[in-house]
Amino acid sequence: MPKTDNLYSAIPADLPDELFETLEQTDGFRLERIVSRGHVTPESAWYDQPLTEWVVLLQGEASLRFEQESEPRRLAPGDWLRIPPHCRHRVEWTSTQPEAVWLALHYPEPVRTETLESE
Amino acid sequence: MPKTDNLYSAIPADLPDELFETLEQTDGFRLERIVSRGHVTPESAWYDQPLTEWVVLLQGEASLRFEQESEPRRLAPGDWLRIPPHCRHRVEWTSTQPEAVWLALHYPEPVRTETLESE
Repeated sequence: MPKTDNLYSAIPADLPDELFETLEQTDGFRLERIVSRGHVTPESAWYDQPLTEWVVLLQGEASLRFEQESEPRRLAPGDWLRIPPHCRHRVEWTSTQPEAVWLALHYPEPVRTETLESE
Repeated sequence: MPKTDNLYSAIPADLPDELFETLEQTDGFRLERIVSRGHVTPESAWYDQPLTEWVVLLQGEASLRFEQESEPRRLAPGDWLRIPPHCRHRVEWTSTQPEAVWLALHYPEPVRTETLESE
């Protein structure tokens, strides 16, 4: 039977730390839900990741800064970004009411051009 | 530079057919956006897919039926399902205002247990 859940459910009332949960993973990717309630990347720290990250903000608002850009980007629900490996970035602000809910897909390069047979 | 877009943008005013767009793909997965505006699976037809599908409804409402279940499941925003290969299912209803926007991830089994090093 299909496993099912809701991306906006089971968000703890008390959230001292950002919440990272792996929803699915194979040899080819890891899919995670992230919940941020005002959480930001620690001061002077940058995410510098070996994998590509495709990330979408689904609820709330956030501000994301890339090292090579002078101004942060403000994100609204539905906004997604494909962040290349080692493209340094940090979360500068996240909303609290409602909290920011993200879906992130981490995967190794290269992106293929041939289509997977799916249907 | 990071590529960016919004999942709710660029939805055609005229949508005679369901819209399927591949957002990302590698050897390990294919990620697609699906927009349904009242579209349903053709009568008596079933999706019978060789790959696992993790699918989430992000906007609108929909009704999804699995062959081994007597009643369809009603889906609201945030509801996701992990549909195993060859688990026959059909979309019985989708909303029109707003239209249903889905994010679907298609990938081969098996799901791995070891964690990808990502950060």
